[in-house]
Parts: sequence; structure tokens; C-alpha cells
Amino acid sequence: MSEKKFLPLTDLAIEVGAILEKDEDDDIDGIDLQIDTFENYKKTHIEVFTEEGEEIIGKPIGHYITIESEHLKENDPEIHKEIIEEVADCLKGLLPTHTGTLKVLVIGLGNRQATPDTLGPYVCDKVLVTRHLAEFVPDAIDESVCHLSSLAPGVMGLTGIETSEVVKGVCDHINPDCIIAIDALGARSASRINSTIQISNTGISPGAGIGNKRKKLNCETMGCPVIAIGVPTVVDAATLINDTMDTLIESMLAESINTEFYSMLRDLGDQEKYSLIREVITPTIGNLFVTPKDMDEVIMYLGNVIANAINIAVHPGITIDDVNKYRY
Amino acid sequence: MSEKKFLPLTDLAIEVGAILEKDEDDDIDGIDLQIDTFENYKKTHIEVFTEEGEEIIGKPIGHYITIESEHLKENDPEIHKEIIEEVADCLKGLLPTHTGTLKVLVIGLGNRQATPDTLGPYVCDKVLVTRHLAEFVPDAIDESVCHLSSLAPGVMGLTGIETSEVVKGVCDHINPDCIIAIDALGARSASRINSTIQISNTGISPGAGIGNKRKKLNCETMGCPVIAIGVPTVVDAATLINDTMDTLIESMLAESINTEFYSMLRDLGDQEKYSLIREVITPTIGNLFVTPKDMDEVIMYLGNVIANAINIAVHPGITIDDVNKYRY
Amino acid sequence: MSEKKFLPLTDLAIEVGAILEKDEDDDIDGIDLQIDTFENYKKTHIEVFTEEGEEIIGKPIGHYITIESEHLKENDPEIHKEIIEEVADCLKGLLPTHTGTLKVLVIGLGNRQATPDTLGPYVCDKVLVTRHLAEFVPDAIDESVCHLSSLAPGVMGLTGIETSEVVKGVCDHINPDCIIAIDALGARSASRINSTIQISNTGISPGAGIGNKRKKLNCETMGCPVIAIGVPTVVDAATLINDTMDTLIESMLAESINTEFYSMLRDLGDQEKYSLIREVITPTIGNLFVTPKDMDEVIMYLGNVIANAINIAVHPGITIDDVNKYRY
Amino acid sequence: MSEKKFLPLTDLAIEVGAILEKDEDDDIDGIDLQIDTFENYKKTHIEVFTEEGEEIIGKPIGHYITIESEHLKENDPEIHKEIIEEVADCLKGLLPTHTGTLKVLVIGLGNRQATPDTLGPYVCDKVLVTRHLAEFVPDAIDESVCHLSSLAPGVMGLTGIETSEVVKGVCDHINPDCIIAIDALGARSASRINSTIQISNTGISPGAGIGNKRKKLNCETMGCPVIAIGVPTVVDAATLINDTMDTLIESMLAESINTEFYSMLRDLGDQEKYSLIREVITPTIGNLFVTPKDMDEVIMYLGNVIANAINIAVHPGITIDDVNKYRY
Repeated sequence: MSEKKFLPLTDLAIEVGAILEKDEDDDIDGIDLQIDTFENYKKTHIEVFTEEGEEIIGKPIGHYITIESEHLKENDPEIHKEIIEEVADCLKGLLPTHTGTLKVLVIGLGNRQATPDTLGPYVCDKVLVTRHLAEFVPDAIDESVCHLSSLAPGVMGLTGIETSEVVKGVCDHINPDCIIAIDALGARSASRINSTIQISNTGISPGAGIGNKRKKLNCETMGCPVIAIGVPTVVDAATLINDTMDTLIESMLAESINTEFYSMLRDLGDQEKYSLIREVITPTIGNLFVTPKDMDEVIMYLGNVIANAINIAVHPGITIDDVNKYRY
Repeated sequence: MSEKKFLPLTDLAIEVGAILEKDEDDDIDGIDLQIDTFENYKKTHIEVFTEEGEEIIGKPIGHYITIESEHLKENDPEIHKEIIEEVADCLKGLLPTHTGTLKVLVIGLGNRQATPDTLGPYVCDKVLVTRHLAEFVPDAIDESVCHLSSLAPGVMGLTGIETSEVVKGVCDHINPDCIIAIDALGARSASRINSTIQISNTGISPGAGIGNKRKKLNCETMGCPVIAIGVPTVVDAATLINDTMDTLIESMLAESINTEFYSMLRDLGDQEKYSLIREVITPTIGNLFVTPKDMDEVIMYLGNVIANAINIAVHPGITIDDVNKYRY
Repeated sequence: MSEKKFLPLTDLAIEVGAILEKDEDDDIDGIDLQIDTFENYKKTHIEVFTEEGEEIIGKPIGHYITIESEHLKENDPEIHKEIIEEVADCLKGLLPTHTGTLKVLVIGLGNRQATPDTLGPYVCDKVLVTRHLAEFVPDAIDESVCHLSSLAPGVMGLTGIETSEVVKGVCDHINPDCIIAIDALGARSASRINSTIQISNTGISPGAGIGNKRKKLNCETMGCPVIAIGVPTVVDAATLINDTMDTLIESMLAESINTEFYSMLRDLGDQEKYSLIREVITPTIGNLFVTPKDMDEVIMYLGNVIANAINIAVHPGITIDDVNKYRY
Repeated sequence: MSEKKFLPLTDLAIEVGAILEKDEDDDIDGIDLQIDTFENYKKTHIEVFTEEGEEIIGKPIGHYITIESEHLKENDPEIHKEIIEEVADCLKGLLPTHTGTLKVLVIGLGNRQATPDTLGPYVCDKVLVTRHLAEFVPDAIDESVCHLSSLAPGVMGLTGIETSEVVKGVCDHINPDCIIAIDALGARSASRINSTIQISNTGISPGAGIGNKRKKLNCETMGCPVIAIGVPTVVDAATLINDTMDTLIESMLAESINTEFYSMLRDLGDQEKYSLIREVITPTIGNLFVTPKDMDEVIMYLGNVIANAINIAVHPGITIDDVNKYRY
């Protein structure tokens, strides 16, 4: 997990919305924004389709979809089913069109030994793996399944190898048509933890960096489309404090307690304020992270939603009715 | 774990120290304070021995010992050995004097399913359990071991039973001479996490409360002395924010940026400020906790230190040379 | 788990069946046998209702129900639902009739650290615990739930305390109307592993014995009815060898290869043969056990079936439609 | 784990010994056998150094070393230290001679989800990983460490990818000087379980096979020397039964109960007898495995011995005195 790597898609959507609002014509060249609010979740779909759009938004050409639902944190199998279908539909829309059997490589990024970072490996363990059957016992499978393989490459701090090197090495040997990479992300706000699934087809940067030469997993580096699925599962201490102070100050402001302190902090600008807080807390609590108490359970909810959505999206013969088979 | 239950022994020591300093005569009736600073750890021993002392200090008559060491967080077996010997000595001093074989019941408080709360159960699994041998195969053991049993009673949220009821029920049947209860605590300050072992002979209040009728484990309720060993392993989000804001404000104060905000907060008093922060953060992040990234490993260090110290303190034939046998 | 403790209910049923067959009148005084074969499982219900029946069958008066299904080993949520309903019905029939809210204590026997023995503790973690709510926040619950508490008392080898002492101690404090005790059993035959759920209302003997004074959990010792739910999850090496040799010899016999070896073994009688095998293998492999490769997964299937069945049987407001909520 | 893949080094040694004995001249061209018996372990070192030797022994040119000790199964840190030093010495002798910093890739074969198969991944997690530091923060390390990376590639049944493909892919990117691959093996005899460490420099065949095209990890396939470290941790049910029947029959033979059954089995030959047993047991218990009850603990002993031995062998600055740092 990284403090930096999150795709701030929701923020992006809000930002895009703000730009759109300002713009009287209600459209930006090269960017589409669609927001759909359902009873149990909200879907935000941004498409960047021209270089002009890229420049305005600071994101490469591609699709950026966010599914938001507080129900993701709860043990609610019925609502999870709805979200699985939505995520599966989103994935289907991003998969390469293809005649014949699709070859998919699922990559579970993250560290199996740190609970909030186990989402990726957990999904790897739950998707229906078939590639070896196709190779060694072809009679055992039919056209109801694609050729799926999965790998949890570990994190560089424990392996000594950049994740992208492991994945690239495997790709070179098995030549998938498409990679689906799952990762737990650092949230930009405590309120987003475990309630957002972010999907894009422009790749992902695995892991927190020692140094800053981390290589992205994307079409260019891997040689095939990379669909990224991310869920914010932790927030760092500095972000938490930052958010809380904002709320605190705002509530005081509302009560007309204007203060030099407030003015000073506001003048700093968001990034400077965050940096100030990080600097203050680093020596003591630099290695602390903030996570919900019931994280183990919620990882299972999220992992089951994502694994089922992948199974339905990539295997022609698996449907929403099979959902309980891939929950354990 | 509870936000409230920690024995703020270090704070107590500081407080007592402050009172002692003010008091020219350098002594308070009924209270003894001894601080020993060693190369690798610091030991603070407060004894309250009269009712007068009880009243001044707000703590029942008894011993309150704190071992502080940053090395507890690190994989340093040699320094851990030193601390094991110190903790074992402290425990020996608190065990009931006894002729014949001691009957000890080790209680591991906490929830096996939440990493920072697994310390108690972990210690239960590591101490050398012998009571059943004494009963069923007496020839298998000799006087080198006492009669030790251990129990991890779970937490009320998962069992539906107050921890004290479980322990009392078991005590009634096995009649130990002494209980040693281990628990992970909520820290009052992020800097204390995993670096402090607190020992007292005045009992412990298990777990966080739904309601406030939680019963203490102590000599009165259990019918035998209760030695408590506690280690702060988490800090709640409000405490973390509170601490950081204090540091932030102080650093601004140092730069002569006096502010209304600061004045306002200072005027609130510590408890009010904490409550204000709690109130602000509750809706969003009420169920978040703050814990180090390497918690799984550190629990092992702490658990091994405590389990070894107990083994050495209670079993006559186990010495510091056996320390590696009880590390796994 | 014990090599000896299993309730050989299926064997009992077969035995009873054999006796019934021999008996022209097709009934035994004091014993009822009912076998129902469904598409996906088989249910055998023996009732012993007189002392005469007790003597013939060597089992105390009570109900002995066995649900057998190979599907218990498979990830088949639909069939599991059928079995859950059947087990829930069986349990309902054995619960004390009661006006007002039932107080149930679920006991999860077994060792959390040995996979095939984790069934009991797993069920404890999955049942809906409510007793503490009734006590501390009565407004939070209504008549849709009974007062359920749960405890995993550990195994004597790790706690030094007889399981019955722990349970009795807790019972004395919380006075349940009924205990439901779950345990993983040693199977008498490899083919029974993980495919049989045994239910009786005559209690259970926890754990493997050092010595032979192990106390039963039953109405007499606990002061309330004890419903036992057991699943054979391992077979000891000697049993496995015994079974295999029988099969081997029979297959040779079928091919008319009568042998002295065979004759000798047959002459020994079952118990002697088993003892001979145990004697031969003990030095080398006495501590080996035999278990399926996918045990972790199967424990989840079994645990979810049993936990759901208990929830439905004891909580008036929980039905088969809630089954997916208690699967994680 | 595989029933077939074990390097039957001990058997080989016995065989070679037998050949040597027959041969009056006491030497075989192209094969060296050295057996050293120490107080706490036994070391057998076979070197095949000519093609003639290859042919006689049926093994490629290389070194085959076995360390045998019942103490590996026990919690005996002092004896483990001795074995660590011996294994480290063996490894040093097999590492490529090299000027400059060695680049080592540790491969932990096996399935993280099946206890007896976790040895490889466990070792991966315990060795001191440094390669990423060398790349990203070269100032953080010095010549006291080599460049070590580690990878647990999973098993084909869960990933859909042949292990050799994953390892080859990674090798192509990071170009190690040497691979050290650790795997849990299937034992040929129950008595060998967990008491033997096998080391060779001729590679290893990962995993049990669906199909039989499994590719070896060796110098030829990987492009660098592959040192294999294997420990037998399970025995399959058929082997167990086979061994026991042998013992049983021998004991009867000793009592002069010669039997047709015995004669028949003897006449079958070892492989046929084993096949017969497998055939008989397959339907019911084909997926059972036999493993010691305390496997979780023993995996830690073995894993710590091997990880420490690797650390000492490859990192110039790590010595036997650091052994407790890499035990957790």
C-alpha cells in the first residue's frame, strides 16, 4: 500500500464535475462524466478520450470507474450481489474484445502478512483458476471458462524484487491477453476506507516506494491491457489528522471563532499543511497506520465481491447464480 | 482493549515525581517511588502502602511497576533477555509467598481475531502448562515446575459472557494461589505503543465496555491475588489527533505564533479537548484504530518476553538459559 | 480429538438394524430406528427410550441422529442449505421446551491450533451471540433472538484444565437452559471423514485422554441438557491401515487367494487386530494423523452448516433465508 | 508436494554403500560416499563426478548431502544451532565461487495454505532480503550482505502457471548468480518425516503433477546453478500402509508364521505392492495425507534452521551468533 498511489478517482470526478459546472457549455472536449445513483450504490464513470482531455484532467486516455457503497463494509450478501453484477459489467466493458478463448492473468498486489494489504492476494485465491487445466487436462474444461491464471507477487520489501519485474517476467512466458491487477490502496480520506471500488484500464503502480523509480503495470510495460481494481483500505495517520483538523476548524469557523491558527493553516495550502503534519508526527508515529477494527471481515466481503465479479466477467459460463460458490 | 482501562502507571510515576519535587521533604506518607535507569530499559516502581497514600494517588494499596524500552519493538534477542530477567524478578516479588508447590492460573485477556489484542492469548499459548500433568501423570513432573494452567477467556463481544464470570467460574473449580492476567491496553500516547510493560498486583479490568458494569479481576472478586501485566498496543484515533495537535501547537508557540485557537484549546482542559476531538471524529472514524505496521511481529517479541518471564518467575527449575525454548 | 470418543452412531444404527433384522417381530423393546434417505443426504434417527433399550444398545436413554452426505465435503451452497434445515430441525426437536427466552450456551470443543480440530471453535465464532446485549443493552434486541453465549474452552494439553471444569465453572455463573457442544471427532473409518454430522442429547466426552478420568459434559455433570454435535474429521493411522488391510484381504479372498495371514488376522477379532496394528506402528508413527488435503476449506463448510443450523434452531427470528449472513 | 519428487538421497546412500561393500576394492569409479556421524546428527555426502558414476547411480553429476537428526522435530535451540552451522557449511561448499557480491534468489516452493507444504514460503519470509536496498538505497547496506531476493511462486493448482515458468520469468529479469530452492517433500517412509534435510546442487522438480510435463528447476532450465533444499514433511497414505504391512509381516515372519499372503506380496515386488495398495485405497482415501499432529511447530523449527543456514552461507557478515534474530 502506498500513501501516494491511490487513483483519486472520486476526487477526479468531483473535480471534473466542478470544471463542468464552471463551463457554461457543460462539456469539456475529450472528457465524459456520467454519474448514476442507485439505491444501494453510486457509480461514477469518467472517460478521457482525447489528448486534450488528458491534459485537462492529468490522467491518460482511458476509463475511470468508481463504485461507492457503504454496504461494502457490511455483511449484506444481497446488496453485495448487486454490486458484483455492476463490477462484472464494468470489467466486461474494459476487457479486450476477442474471438476465441481469453487468456487472463489476475495479479494480487500487496502483502499477505498485513491485514489491510491482503485484498489482492485474497482475490487471487478466490478466482477460478483454469489455465493449467487447459494445458494439462484439456478434456476437463470446456468453453464455459476462459484461461485464467493468478499470481500474488508479494511486495518488494519482502522479496527484494520490484513487483513489475515479477509480473513482466511471468507475462513474457504466458502471454496473457489481459491483466487484471487488484490492490489495496491508501485512502485520501478516512470516510472512503472500504467503501469504494475503483476500476480503470490505464494500469496501476504497485506498492509503496523506497526510492521513486517504481515501474507502473500498464499496457506499455506489460505488453497487454492492464485493468486495475483498487480499494482504499487504510488511511495514514497524517491524513487522518489533517481531515480531523479541517473538520474541527470548520466547526469552530461555523461558530465564528476565527483564529490566527486557522488563518495560518489555510494560508499554507493543502499540500503544505499535510507536509507540516507529516513532519510533526514522523519521529514518533511515522510507521502507524489507521484501519477499522473489523478489517479481517471486511477484506472478505470486498475480496468476495471482486473475485466473483472477475469470475463472471471473464468466464462465459459463470453467472451471478454461482456467487455463493466463490465466497469462501 | 479499552480506551479507558490502561493503568497510566508512567503518568502516575511522573505525577508522583512532580508531587515529590514540590514537597521539600522529598517524601509522601504512604508512597514510595523508585526509578532505575539502565542502559537498555527504565524501571519505575511505585508502592502505595497506606490509605493516606491511596487517597493522594487515587490508586489502591499495592505495587505499580513499569518497564520502558524502545527495544521491545525490535528484534533484539539479547536485550529482550535482560528485560525478561527484570520482568521475572518483578513478578517473583509479587507472587504469594508459599510453602509447597504454587498453583498459578495465567489468564490471557483479549481477542484472538484482532492482531493488536492477541497479546494475552499469545502468552497463554507460550507458557509452560503443567497442572494437568500434576493431576493425571504426576510421575512426569517434579519440583522443578509449579502447577500452571492457562486460559484465554475471549472477549464479551464474541462470547456474550463477561470475562470476569468465565475466570471466576474456573477459579472456583481449580482454586489457584494466584492469577497472572495479561492484556493489551489502549495507550494514552502514541509514543508508548509497544514500548512499555506494566505490572501491578492490584488487578485489572478486562475489555472495552458495553455498559459500565464491567467487573474487575482482583483479589476481592477472584479470591486470590491477581497480578496484572499490561502492554499498550494501540492508540485510538482521538488520542493520536490530540497528541499531534498538541505537538503542532507547541511547535508554533515556540515560533511565537500565539493563536486564539491555541488559547481556546488550552482553556478547554485536557479532558474537554479530547472529548471535543472525539465528538468531531466519531461519525466517520469512530471505529478506526491506530497501530504499527509490523504489529504481528512485535506481538511475538512482547509475548515471548512476557511468557518467558512468567515461566522463570513461577517454575523453580526454569532459568534465563531456557529462554529460547519458549520463543516459538 | 480422541481416537476413542466418537459416538459410533452410524455403526450403532447398523448394529440396531442387524438386530432388528434378526428379530422376526421387527421391533426391539425400548429402541426405535428410523432411516430416511433423501436425494442429497441420509438421516438415521435412533431413540433409546427404556432401560431395556439402554442395556441392549449400550447407550443411555436419548436421541441419536446422524446426517450423512458426501456433499458436506464439497462447496455446494444449495445442498448445504438443505442440510442446514435438517440439522436445525433435529436440534429444535432436542431443545428443552420452554416458555420465555431460551438461554443457550454453545461450547466449541477442540484445539484452535490444529486444523482438523478447529471445528468447535470455528462454530463458536460464527453463531450469533446475544447474551451480553440482553444484559447490557436490552433495547438493542427483541424476541427474535434468544440469549446465546459461546465459549471455546481450549484443550487440556494447552490449558492444564479439564474442559469439563471450565464449562462447569462458567455454567455455574450463567445458568444456561441448555448447552450445545460441538466437537471434531476421530472417525472409525476413513470413508466417514467430513461426511457425517452426529447429534445426540446425551452429552459428550471432550478431548483425548491423558489418564482416563475425563469427565463427560452431560445433564448430570452440567445441570442442564447437553446436546452434542460431532463430525469425524480425522482418522488415526492405525484405523486407516486396519481398514485398508481389510479391503485388501477381502479383495484377495474374492479372488480365492485364501491365506494363513488372512485366517490369522480374522481369528484375532477386530479389537485385537487393531491393537496389533497400533503396537506395530506406535514407535515410529504414533503421533501421525490422517486428514484430507483440503481440510481448511472443509472445516468452513462444516462450520457454516452447523453454525447456521444452531442460529436457526435457537433464535426465533433467524430463518434459512439468513444463511448467507453467517457464512463468513 | 509430490509423492514422487523426493530425492531419495538416504536411500541412495544406502544403495551406494551396499555397492561399495560388494566391491572388494572399496571404490566405484566416479562416486564418492562419505558418512559422518556426530552426536546429534548424521551427515551423508555423495558426490557423483563422472558420467560413469551417473550411470551407476542414476543421478546426474553433482553433490547429494543429507543431514539426519531426530532433534529437528524438537524444540531444541542448541542442537538446532549445530545443524544450522552444518547446513550453512554444506551450502557454502555448493555456492558458485565468485568475486564481488553474490546475487542469490531464494525460491520457496509449496502451498501457503497447506501446513505441511508451507516450509518453502516460510523460509522465504525469514531470509534477510537485501536486493532492493542495493538497488534503491545502496548506502543502507555494505559488503556484509550479498544481494538476496526471495519469491514464493505458489503452486500450479492455485495459480494456473507452472512454477518453473514463474521462476524462469523472474530469473530472466534479475539474473541471479544462483538459485536456492526450498521445498517440502513427500517422504518415502514415515520415519523420515521432519528428520531429514536434503541438499543437492542438481536442481529440483517442483510440485505434484497434473500431467507429467513438469519442468525441473536446474542449471540448464534456469541459466544459473540451482541448489535444492528439501525436507520430507508428509507421507502418503499408501506409503504408510505399505510400511506398516511390511513391519507386520516381518514380525510375523520372525515368529515363523509364514503365509501365502506374505509370499504373494513379496512376489509382487515393491513397486507392484505399492501400486496394489494405492489401487485399493484410492476411491475412499485418495486425497488423505498423513502428517504429525504438531506440524505447525515443526515447520517453524525446520524453517528457522534452513533460513538461518542460508543467511549465514550467503551473507558474509551474518554468523551463527545472529541466529536468534532470524528465528521469528
